[in-house]
Amino acid sequence: MGAGILAGLRIVEISAFVAAPLGGATLAALGADVIRVDPPGGGVDIGRWPLHRGRSLYWAGLNQGKRSVTIDMRQAPGQEKVAGLICAPGEGGGIFLTNLPVSGWSSYDELKKLRGDLIMVVISGNRDGTAAVDYTVNAALGFPFITGPEDADGPVNHVLPAWDAMTGFLAATAILAADRHRHLTGEGQLVELSLSDVGLAVTAHLGLIGEAVLEDEPRGRYGNHIYGTFGRDFVTRDGRRVMVLALTPRQWRSLVEATGLSGEFRNVEARLGLYFNNEGDRWRGRQEICELLQGWISVRTFASVASAFDAQRVLWGPYQTFKELVAGDPRASVANPLLKGVDHPGLGLYPTPGSPLRFGAAEPVAPKPAPTLGEHTEEVLREFGL
Amino acid sequence: MGAGILAGLRIVEISAFVAAPLGGATLAALGADVIRVDPPGGGVDIGRWPLHRGRSLYWAGLNQGKRSVTIDMRQAPGQEKVAGLICAPGEGGGIFLTNLPVSGWSSYDELKKLRGDLIMVVISGNRDGTAAVDYTVNAALGFPFITGPEDADGPVNHVLPAWDAMTGFLAATAILAADRHRHLTGEGQLVELSLSDVGLAVTAHLGLIGEAVLEDEPRGRYGNHIYGTFGRDFVTRDGRRVMVLALTPRQWRSLVEATGLSGEFRNVEARLGLYFNNEGDRWRGRQEICELLQGWISVRTFASVASAFDAQRVLWGPYQTFKELVAGDPRASVANPLLKGVDHPGLGLYPTPGSPLRFGAAEPVAPKPAPTLGEHTEEVLREFGL
Repeated sequence: MGAGILAGLRIVEISAFVAAPLGGATLAALGADVIRVDPPGGGVDIGRWPLHRGRSLYWAGLNQGKRSVTIDMRQAPGQEKVAGLICAPGEGGGIFLTNLPVSGWSSYDELKKLRGDLIMVVISGNRDGTAAVDYTVNAALGFPFITGPEDADGPVNHVLPAWDAMTGFLAATAILAADRHRHLTGEGQLVELSLSDVGLAVTAHLGLIGEAVLEDEPRGRYGNHIYGTFGRDFVTRDGRRVMVLALTPRQWRSLVEATGLSGEFRNVEARLGLYFNNEGDRWRGRQEICELLQGWISVRTFASVASAFDAQRVLWGPYQTFKELVAGDPRASVANPLLKGVDHPGLGLYPTPGSPLRFGAAEPVAPKPAPTLGEHTEEVLREFGL
Repeated sequence: MGAGILAGLRIVEISAFVAAPLGGATLAALGADVIRVDPPGGGVDIGRWPLHRGRSLYWAGLNQGKRSVTIDMRQAPGQEKVAGLICAPGEGGGIFLTNLPVSGWSSYDELKKLRGDLIMVVISGNRDGTAAVDYTVNAALGFPFITGPEDADGPVNHVLPAWDAMTGFLAATAILAADRHRHLTGEGQLVELSLSDVGLAVTAHLGLIGEAVLEDEPRGRYGNHIYGTFGRDFVTRDGRRVMVLALTPRQWRSLVEATGLSGEFRNVEARLGLYFNNEGDRWRGRQEICELLQGWISVRTFASVASAFDAQRVLWGPYQTFKELVAGDPRASVANPLLKGVDHPGLGLYPTPGSPLRFGAAEPVAPKPAPTLGEHTEEVLREFGL
């Protein structure tokens, strides 16, 4: 057993793109032995952009800390090897994570003949097994019509594959829940989840399904305003963008104190019959609040806004490009213990995260690069006598 | 023990807004007994929008299936009761989840005096404990400058609180990993995570940190195009929007077959020296591909596009508003076993999700409404002899 809270767990992953690979990387970052199996030459995501020198930074990021095995799974001998690997004995083994279609030899019913207590987590697009990806799920869920500038026409996709990432983290949760059940009962199981169901569940948890059913007025598109409370972006005198919020009465008082605009805000409250300690009233008066605040911020430099806000514990933060993030934000540098400088073979050196989860009772696992494709084929086949 | 894969686990949650509440709701939907403790009158999120008849649909969604206890935690007697509840005996108990500041009586060091094997998961904004929320984390991470229309000026926030949701799911993972460790060793622990670290880790896993460090060219803003491959939104003759993708060679062939545009695409390939079986070439030729495809889609109705695409297994999906989602998509109706019609006290009846995780070896937990605030105070205090 190596370091990490999940040392002793072994997961075989047959996967592509984000959801299953991120689930596997999440477990690997906590010390699990995650073995990704691909066809020789790599799967459909081996060259996914962004690239550097023709190599996929995306694949390198999503497969960090795993072992890589390549086997031709189109033929019976390869299929038998992979089935043998998935179902190899050992207390923490017998866990299979996939987001590719399974059938025949790779079905739960066939594999469980080789290991009765198999845990198999299958991620699909839609619940019925039909295809869906982050971008089609997002299109169906309604978010693109409330995202983007208030005057935007048509849908605005968010670029972050958020549903994929959530599904990956939930797959990690699923594996640990099934492992707990196996510890308690000796019993394995098939666990299924779909991107679409994850998206629907989160949309519902945020109140948006209930709102769409119960409220007559459809949710509008409000640009960078935060719906139902106060928050928006502003521009400083030197052209920097900042996000400023007041979600709680305390945060509102901080903003009033920091800007010294209490008289002005009180006048607006009196004129509109609002009371900005209430979040709903901050929302109703958002245009007037924003005008006053933009006036205050636009005559000040970023540095001066930052120091006034920090002194009063205003809830705010700077906007940064990815370049600014890596160049100037200590959180994105090796000053943050989350990140270490890792030299990725064929790519180069850059700050690379371990797990964002910090367990007091376990050694952290140092971030490792992704394997090169097939790097561990021989080692793994030998280790498991295949 | 009731139904659900996590029956027997008990979590006390002191929380607000999204991350910790969603983590708790995720565990509750799998059968854990999740007890949310709030001050009398509710916490800062009790009235968070969206509302219906003045009540929070957001709170109802994020606290589904929990028990609710209200206690004044500003005074010692209340603090002692809550500490006693967190640290009550029982094998699956002694788990505390929070995203509010902890100190004094609620610190790990104090609580663990009452129960040595306490598991405590603390979510913060930044790793150093300073304040950050989904919207400031997102601003710092770079996504707002690559989200939104290509000609947009300034940052475009995504509306979905994606970092919060991911953090909630990771907190659930953290609890199960710590519970596994406790089963194996008898030892509890403090687990910490921050929104900011979760955001950085995901940004890095997607290759964006490496890209920003290694590539000279900053990532651009490409509207609804999917970077590095083919995907975008299109408008049908009858004004419906569809998202169409070709992430793999198979999906590209499907799209060519479905549209019958193989000759036209071949001409473009020859003219530009590209080969659209390669994702990078689909990206380079995206404007030309989109023009041809928009020409084909814009003269066809939604129904005719849908049937042509489905016949060839094109990867596509309709855009829908939230209203269209709940009115017409069977996935968002009780035809989907994920959802049941639940009557939420004071709100009304609407489709309400259980867990998107389906465990073959455990009974699903029927979705329950959120408790009314303080509904279980007496019951819980009696049950634990407080």
